[in-house]
Amino acid sequence: MALIVHKYGGTSMGSPERIRNVAKRVAKWARAGHQMVVVPSAMSGETNRLLSLAKEVAPSKHTDAVLRELDMIAATGEQVSVGLLSLALQAEGMEAVSYAGWQVPIKTDSSYSKARIQSIDDVRVRADLEAGKVAIITGFQGVDDQDNITTLGRGGSDTSAVAVAAAMRADECLIYTDVDGVYTTDPRIVPEARRMARISFEEMLEMASLGSKVLQIRSVEFAGKYRVPLRVLSSFTPWDISIDEEARSGTLITFEDDEKMEQAVVSGIAFNRDEAKITVVGVPDKPGIASRILGAVADANIEVDVILQNVSHGGKTDFSFTVHRNDYQKTLDLLKSGVVASLEAADVVGDTRICKVSIVGIGMRSHAGVASTMFRTLADEGINIQMITTSEIKTSVVIDEKYMELAVRALHKAFALDESQTAV
Amino acid sequence: MALIVHKYGGTSMGSPERIRNVAKRVAKWARAGHQMVVVPSAMSGETNRLLSLAKEVAPSKHTDAVLRELDMIAATGEQVSVGLLSLALQAEGMEAVSYAGWQVPIKTDSSYSKARIQSIDDVRVRADLEAGKVAIITGFQGVDDQDNITTLGRGGSDTSAVAVAAAMRADECLIYTDVDGVYTTDPRIVPEARRMARISFEEMLEMASLGSKVLQIRSVEFAGKYRVPLRVLSSFTPWDISIDEEARSGTLITFEDDEKMEQAVVSGIAFNRDEAKITVVGVPDKPGIASRILGAVADANIEVDVILQNVSHGGKTDFSFTVHRNDYQKTLDLLKSGVVASLEAADVVGDTRICKVSIVGIGMRSHAGVASTMFRTLADEGINIQMITTSEIKTSVVIDEKYMELAVRALHKAFALDESQTAV
Repeated sequence: MALIVHKYGGTSMGSPERIRNVAKRVAKWARAGHQMVVVPSAMSGETNRLLSLAKEVAPSKHTDAVLRELDMIAATGEQVSVGLLSLALQAEGMEAVSYAGWQVPIKTDSSYSKARIQSIDDVRVRADLEAGKVAIITGFQGVDDQDNITTLGRGGSDTSAVAVAAAMRADECLIYTDVDGVYTTDPRIVPEARRMARISFEEMLEMASLGSKVLQIRSVEFAGKYRVPLRVLSSFTPWDISIDEEARSGTLITFEDDEKMEQAVVSGIAFNRDEAKITVVGVPDKPGIASRILGAVADANIEVDVILQNVSHGGKTDFSFTVHRNDYQKTLDLLKSGVVASLEAADVVGDTRICKVSIVGIGMRSHAGVASTMFRTLADEGINIQMITTSEIKTSVVIDEKYMELAVRALHKAFALDESQTAV
Repeated sequence: MALIVHKYGGTSMGSPERIRNVAKRVAKWARAGHQMVVVPSAMSGETNRLLSLAKEVAPSKHTDAVLRELDMIAATGEQVSVGLLSLALQAEGMEAVSYAGWQVPIKTDSSYSKARIQSIDDVRVRADLEAGKVAIITGFQGVDDQDNITTLGRGGSDTSAVAVAAAMRADECLIYTDVDGVYTTDPRIVPEARRMARISFEEMLEMASLGSKVLQIRSVEFAGKYRVPLRVLSSFTPWDISIDEEARSGTLITFEDDEKMEQAVVSGIAFNRDEAKITVVGVPDKPGIASRILGAVADANIEVDVILQNVSHGGKTDFSFTVHRNDYQKTLDLLKSGVVASLEAADVVGDTRICKVSIVGIGMRSHAGVASTMFRTLADEGINIQMITTSEIKTSVVIDEKYMELAVRALHKAFALDESQTAV
């Protein structure tokens, strides 16, 4: 008997019939003797419906007081989901009980709309499991220490599921979604993309953070930190396939290097066109510059992705970074309104028409020439590289967004990803 | 400066535009210097939508575990409402903060779907008011001592509003609804029905419990117990009429007898066609019979309205009572499956095609002949009376439901209610 956490996305919960199918699948696992915790998302479209309603009532600036209410409103989507799934499970003859985040409780900080989980008290849920009940917990939400409802931001239900799995030391966390695993790149762009049977935690982290939207990055971080075995699989397989078959499907995120992983040089191609680049031009090259620029940005709760600073000329350097496109104007205004003057920088410039393309692979650690293959492939296609950053297991370039598909296809082919995949 | 509680029904909260109008009305009161607590219902149709969705997912028997989930689901309707109203108030430039029942907390017992309020902790809300904020609290719901969400049953938002007003010792509780006050009877049945400027608490209690669906009866009980000044008024007056004008509109529920009330013999005609009658025939006329019959019914959480037992003949008597039509079959099954045999009763019979019509008035206390006028009026119309009960301020008859409108119109005329109303 194992303790298993299932997470179902909004599409999987998208209609009464689909909810009943989720219940049948969960019941199958429970009847096989497993202790089951289920974390469903809101029904697809529901969170958008609620937030649109809020906007229609009062299109407001996102002050803290406003964000608190948006969280209050959005959190109801998952509360309805857990109740419905519990009813469906009870109709299947299972004992089931639903919990909103605050009832568990899942404690978070007070950053409305992007709260972070601080602790999970599993006493109540564990008692349910011991009593043979299926416990159903809202994803996406928690409660701060003032009893205010918080949400974790879009995709937060993945994080909730993994955090619950970590807190309860679950044997496996299965993320059911509308794709059947993690691919070498997006099959909509490269039809030859192949599903990976396994991917290392580090690679998954890079793939997730770089725009392969299968799993929210924070959920992967959580899984890595607590070594929660994590599997991404499809909720659209028939619910009555065998548990063994399900347990072999999808993509397993692993924490050990095995031979296969050592052999693969590049595992996948990730990309992201949600970012914008900003460059502070001609800043004095002296200690503290980076922290003064990014400190101001961080204080405004804006997340920064790529950060780049090259060697200086004549005591001046350029400092570049990327932010989400939604934060672009805010960031630009922020820098122009004070930071730049105080730094005696020449100018702040930016561009939203960019994209980031990355090659990811644990094998890169010990293989020379991978980056140069990447750069040559792009040059052969006539694509100019605007920025380059590298880490141990990825190399990313920022290019004009109009070349994104071309770059991804060319790299997928250059690294032979459509052939290299071997069954596990 | 007064502490005022406003309650808005589902129709008043029925669209983004209406919610903005509610916000403007509340802001007007707050700007006049009042401390404001607002209790809105779910947007009209929302509770039905949620419960239909639940039924579609799994049409379940109403076990405790099922009712817990239905409360979990239904409670989200009000949670969305308070968030939206808070956003609308903030857009009006007011500081506002919303609370779900559990956040206040409003503590209830654990009777899912018909919980009763046990206590309200006003510390957090009072701090908001002192800080100049408008506090918005979900109606209809609370939390039990195990942190399970409970709902108070349909119309429970009225009760929530009055309970909050009582707990906070509010100066007045204004119930905004889609009618502009309490009428001598339903104007849809008697076009000559007239709005009462004031009605005594006792009369209101009888009017509410007997089917004039303006206010939920429990809210009136609460108001009486804690002497909360309560006003029923329309939410469809323009939001920018003067506060004085609003404060004079609607119907005020009063706690003191004044001259006017002493003079009115009958204040209104109430009616109810949601009930069914059940008679246990031929039970031995000895102590403990009533409690054995009704004890079993109460244990099943079924509410009983009229109870009637007449004198016995030959040591046997008939025991009659009415229940909600939804509980009719359950009650009949319950009695047949055990109670009747153990009582050695001859039979249990019932009828759902009945209605109850009542005349209500504090003046009845000191006026003879009121009941006989009622019975003669019905006889003149050829209406047979099946059951009669009386209290100090009402006389009720149970008749065939097909005569309901006829009876109400005839009685409204017989007691000259279309003429007797005087301005206050």
